[in-house]
Amino acid sequence: MAGTLKRLAVLGSTGSIGRQTLEVVRALPGRFKVVGLAGGSNTALLKKQAEEFSPQFVYYRDKKANTAFEDYQFLPMEEMAAHPDVDTVVIATPGGFGLEPTLAAVRAGKDIALANKESLVSAGHIIMTEAKANGARIMPVDSEHSAIWQCMEGEKTPPARIILTASGGPFRGYTTAQLAGVTAAQALEHPSWRMGKKVTIDSATLMNKGLEVIEAHWLFNIPFENISVLIHPQSVIHSIVEFIDGSVKAQLGCPDMRLPIQYALTYPERLLNTQLPRLDWDTISHLDFERPDMDSFPCLKLAIEAGRRGGTLPEVLCAADEVAVELFLSNRIKFNDIAKLVQQVLEQHENVFIAKPTIKDINTADAWARDRAMRLVLGDEPC
Amino acid sequence: MAGTLKRLAVLGSTGSIGRQTLEVVRALPGRFKVVGLAGGSNTALLKKQAEEFSPQFVYYRDKKANTAFEDYQFLPMEEMAAHPDVDTVVIATPGGFGLEPTLAAVRAGKDIALANKESLVSAGHIIMTEAKANGARIMPVDSEHSAIWQCMEGEKTPPARIILTASGGPFRGYTTAQLAGVTAAQALEHPSWRMGKKVTIDSATLMNKGLEVIEAHWLFNIPFENISVLIHPQSVIHSIVEFIDGSVKAQLGCPDMRLPIQYALTYPERLLNTQLPRLDWDTISHLDFERPDMDSFPCLKLAIEAGRRGGTLPEVLCAADEVAVELFLSNRIKFNDIAKLVQQVLEQHENVFIAKPTIKDINTADAWARDRAMRLVLGDEPC
Repeated sequence: MAGTLKRLAVLGSTGSIGRQTLEVVRALPGRFKVVGLAGGSNTALLKKQAEEFSPQFVYYRDKKANTAFEDYQFLPMEEMAAHPDVDTVVIATPGGFGLEPTLAAVRAGKDIALANKESLVSAGHIIMTEAKANGARIMPVDSEHSAIWQCMEGEKTPPARIILTASGGPFRGYTTAQLAGVTAAQALEHPSWRMGKKVTIDSATLMNKGLEVIEAHWLFNIPFENISVLIHPQSVIHSIVEFIDGSVKAQLGCPDMRLPIQYALTYPERLLNTQLPRLDWDTISHLDFERPDMDSFPCLKLAIEAGRRGGTLPEVLCAADEVAVELFLSNRIKFNDIAKLVQQVLEQHENVFIAKPTIKDINTADAWARDRAMRLVLGDEPC
Repeated sequence: MAGTLKRLAVLGSTGSIGRQTLEVVRALPGRFKVVGLAGGSNTALLKKQAEEFSPQFVYYRDKKANTAFEDYQFLPMEEMAAHPDVDTVVIATPGGFGLEPTLAAVRAGKDIALANKESLVSAGHIIMTEAKANGARIMPVDSEHSAIWQCMEGEKTPPARIILTASGGPFRGYTTAQLAGVTAAQALEHPSWRMGKKVTIDSATLMNKGLEVIEAHWLFNIPFENISVLIHPQSVIHSIVEFIDGSVKAQLGCPDMRLPIQYALTYPERLLNTQLPRLDWDTISHLDFERPDMDSFPCLKLAIEAGRRGGTLPEVLCAADEVAVELFLSNRIKFNDIAKLVQQVLEQHENVFIAKPTIKDINTADAWARDRAMRLVLGDEPC
């Protein structure tokens, strides 16, 4: 039996997706061996996870934590992602921390369960090229991209169009004026999904959906003009694919990230997991749809436009958004300022824009954008 | 190019599905060669079709029509369905006329685009066994079964559950008392689908959905307890498949039979057909769902129960229903009498019920049921 265990490295194991990944591993005994865990600042949880799963490798950001992990081999995330003892790398690290491990994993030809969307958003052209060259498989963990992937499974003809659904977040239907006064606490109350803070705020601004459009463009090789966004408040239909004959497929399910996580881990098989909730059609009387309001939620427009133009702009978008969301969460800017700040940084980036960036260019653009965003808010002195 | 043409025999070419099949053939030039046409009583249309498509073989029911078809070789449907010059047999003949050609086609190992549901309903155990033994592929043309088939494409794990959607027909929401007075003309006004008369009445009684449950059972090898019916008035979601991990896929599209017809003909490819309508999400604000009302529409319950018990009962159900629908269309019985008549015939069949019928048994049961139904309505003298 041990020989058939799929060996996992879970990067970002203490975050929301990382923890749910380990829930799936627990629910499917005899299927997986966790050989690597990489956490961020939550050393206590990482230690608990290491005690439960006894990984070979551990990565922790806080160097002072080394006494807690004396029994494990410390390995940087990039090395863990490429290690020969790892079959599938789950990349659930937040934001910019995903790029280097993703690159290492694609270069090592790994199976990659990719929950970090920023790496594809900022370096999709490099990652997809390297994945193809090295035989790496990128399996999306985002519910929307998993939906599209599931709908494309077995199809011989590429999709004509994809439609990403969006719940609309807690402020669906709000006007710009109404959005002016919303608080971080309100923004963190997502109506349907259990997610980390950053992505929950990005869902409230629709920035998250914009990043997903860019991600879908790279994952499925679909031109931006054939990707659209549809607001669907119930989050039952996770996304929609239209084929050239007019046939349309949708993937549906309860809003529970463990389902796309499990599908990526067990693909192409599906396994019974009694812990996963089932859609109950007795309780679904209607599913609603509406067009996104790009005026009240300009982040969606900004992201799609940055994706369409490409180059360093998507990285600048991500970096500026990360700063903006942090500032919003710490009550230093207002909700509507998130889009304004991102837009300003994007506009100021025109002078240093690079159309075909290397990873170094992307990292430079990232640092530039973070610095720029901070200066714009806190004044021209470095913080 | 000629060598790659798929050679079609279209049985039932003058009916609704047959005509739409020829529309698909016209819309995809260079893909198909119609080598056989079989029509029923509409000799004039069959002649026009023969002139347009120049088939090798023609079948017509009315022997007096032979002068009209002197230029073509007459061939019984069973022979046409098994002829070596035929690659794919489209079986769109109504009701009981489908069984013998379907059997001939499966025994000859053909690809079969199956629109006739009665053959699987009445002899699913024989047809599926023969299809497997002879390498025949049965490709459903019903929109619901095509939906399920499309959702299963590429999946390694069989469905846990399938949900057939039903528009609910023109009398959705009616009580038994309200249904007592409805006319044939009202019943023929289907809200979403363009179909033949028999299937339109069957849609109004929900008998059609019951037959589809039985058909799905055989086509996809799913136990009856894992098949359910969901009323969905917009007919946008054509059916739904749930997998063991809780993931659900649905196939959607405009209610246009040419789409499932084309999919069966071009499978596993999908081809651009600009004549096929596209779903327009700008016009879809909501999709509705409700449980079927088995009390007002007892035909659904009768059919599922006949399917569950099997044997000669499904054939008796089909035959009695054919007679009942004809009597309703000619104003000799009321709408609610359709279910009553079918139920009476089913009850009276208990004495002569055969659990594992041969084709001969099925034909005998068919004749018995038609006779019984007529006698029950018109008195005990044969008509």
